[in-house]
Amino acid sequence: MNLSDVLEQIREPDRAVAAETQRRLDRLTKPQGSLGRLEELAVQYCAITRECKPAVPRGTVFTFAADHGVVDEGVSAYPRDVTAQMVLNFLRGGAGVNVLGRHSNVEIRVVDIGVAHDFGAIAGLIHRKLMMGTRNMLHAPVMDRPTAQQALLVGIELAADAVRQGIGLIGTGEMGIGNTTASAAIVAVMTGAAVDSVTGRGTGLDEQGRARKIAVIEQALASHRPNPHDAVDVLSKVGGLEIAAMAGLILGGAAAEVPVVLDGFIAGAAALIAVGLQPRCREYMIASHRSVEKGHGVVLDSLRLKPLFDLDLRLGEGTGACLGMGLVQAAIKVLTEMATFDEAGVSDRST
Amino acid sequence: MNLSDVLEQIREPDRAVAAETQRRLDRLTKPQGSLGRLEELAVQYCAITRECKPAVPRGTVFTFAADHGVVDEGVSAYPRDVTAQMVLNFLRGGAGVNVLGRHSNVEIRVVDIGVAHDFGAIAGLIHRKLMMGTRNMLHAPVMDRPTAQQALLVGIELAADAVRQGIGLIGTGEMGIGNTTASAAIVAVMTGAAVDSVTGRGTGLDEQGRARKIAVIEQALASHRPNPHDAVDVLSKVGGLEIAAMAGLILGGAAAEVPVVLDGFIAGAAALIAVGLQPRCREYMIASHRSVEKGHGVVLDSLRLKPLFDLDLRLGEGTGACLGMGLVQAAIKVLTEMATFDEAGVSDRST
Repeated sequence: MNLSDVLEQIREPDRAVAAETQRRLDRLTKPQGSLGRLEELAVQYCAITRECKPAVPRGTVFTFAADHGVVDEGVSAYPRDVTAQMVLNFLRGGAGVNVLGRHSNVEIRVVDIGVAHDFGAIAGLIHRKLMMGTRNMLHAPVMDRPTAQQALLVGIELAADAVRQGIGLIGTGEMGIGNTTASAAIVAVMTGAAVDSVTGRGTGLDEQGRARKIAVIEQALASHRPNPHDAVDVLSKVGGLEIAAMAGLILGGAAAEVPVVLDGFIAGAAALIAVGLQPRCREYMIASHRSVEKGHGVVLDSLRLKPLFDLDLRLGEGTGACLGMGLVQAAIKVLTEMATFDEAGVSDRST
Repeated sequence: MNLSDVLEQIREPDRAVAAETQRRLDRLTKPQGSLGRLEELAVQYCAITRECKPAVPRGTVFTFAADHGVVDEGVSAYPRDVTAQMVLNFLRGGAGVNVLGRHSNVEIRVVDIGVAHDFGAIAGLIHRKLMMGTRNMLHAPVMDRPTAQQALLVGIELAADAVRQGIGLIGTGEMGIGNTTASAAIVAVMTGAAVDSVTGRGTGLDEQGRARKIAVIEQALASHRPNPHDAVDVLSKVGGLEIAAMAGLILGGAAAEVPVVLDGFIAGAAALIAVGLQPRCREYMIASHRSVEKGHGVVLDSLRLKPLFDLDLRLGEGTGACLGMGLVQAAIKVLTEMATFDEAGVSDRST
């Protein structure tokens, strides 16, 4: 598979299907528009998949795990080993994303795209390791340009495989101690926002830790000067392997005509990369929630996405995506299971 | 059952159980507090039910249906017959609340508390009709005081029955053409807000219709002068049978130590009545969503409740409650199914 072919393959969603879907929604036994954003989700889903009466989609969250060399600079409240430990927790089903995935009837696929740990041939893990973690952005570009492209292709291929297997809804997830640092750097470059305005406390830094994180990002950006008009350059200089793979997942979902539900801040950084590569993929995105992480608002504004939830989440992994995917499934059920005024013998409005 | 006994029976939720629950949440494999409002829901649920490791609750929404004499004044976009027609739609499973109830694994119980239609002995309907619809508030108090008390008791008894049957989570629902008029009147009285500021378009009035609705409410309030310190007086003068029953449902849930998930604006009017009768019941409430209906913000502020969703819903029936109940179930799964740091062998934070 070739990146530029995939980018060209991404089409606009189908406006005629959107209009037909809204007409069906307007015949259902409820005041027009009264199911608000559920109706919008149904319309968006149908326009993307080009089906007016779709089946309730099977959903899969891909949780990409990778390590970050920049953790050496003390930018995270947790030690680096936690990335690998959490991968094992995902495989045993004990993490937040597993619980919320089961709750929303969403499958979780865990991908090692660059964890600094040898998992051997452990079952249940999708092995796509490209590096043993990225390099420290303070001292060097985090990965080579071909590696960034490979990570994008991993995401694209996994999305394509899933859609071939009948998955109709894809969600982004991630695990990587240090990845809010990489994400903040990406967001600053791609949106032009000040580093301070998009750098948060991650898993729980204090104000001093956050100041250190800002200084590291500013220094890395000053040394490597990533080019905002070249998203692969940005990934290779200050990104992360899991962020690149998520950007690929979004592009792959869009190319395969399936919506992609974004989790929080880190997914947002990946989405900015994806839009940088192909602006049309924006219409395939659904923002699940507004994260507590500082800078997510900047991301959502830049993507012009309005999240479905505002539940003060900041866990990542794909937890918010699972909840959002549940709402998309609910929206499709509304569209396909509710009775129309005619079917139910209910009088339509008198005025 | 006696109303004042039930009101006295309502206790404060258990602070010690709340603290114990938060301690368990803090040992789970996630940064502390990172599941935000899901954690708050778990704590609230446990404090109310006084169980630190509860089972995932079975949920039931009660959808109370009743008619409103004030519909004669042209305050609704839909004809009065729609109330009865929608009851039949509920019983056949074709309405929005049925679809979202199935989605959230929540049972829907439909109660005729005052529909102006004879359903005969139709199966599946809970028959508790007290009147063939209320009187027109423009010309008379809508119901007698004993009828308002009876409607409250119906809600209380249904909640108590459900809890005896093992239901651990109750949701409010309603159907009643004209009931945003009754609700706006109640909200104006109970909060002191101007009628204009709490009167919306309901199922779809235009601006002229809304002006007529405001005039009707203002005239009814001026003639009957409901006493805000006597919630039963308010119900009997400008309320509704389904609103009274929902207020009873909330009180009954609180008395039985089960949380009650509120739907939108009309549920909010019922909640103000319930709090007027027993302020302690407020802590048993969970606001599912922020409705589009004008005035819901005033209600939520007055109840000091922050809704879980903001999805531009304005359908009622219990649709938002179903979605909110799904989140409560998710919160309990987080609490009881996630691994702790010790169990998962994950390092806790380094700082």
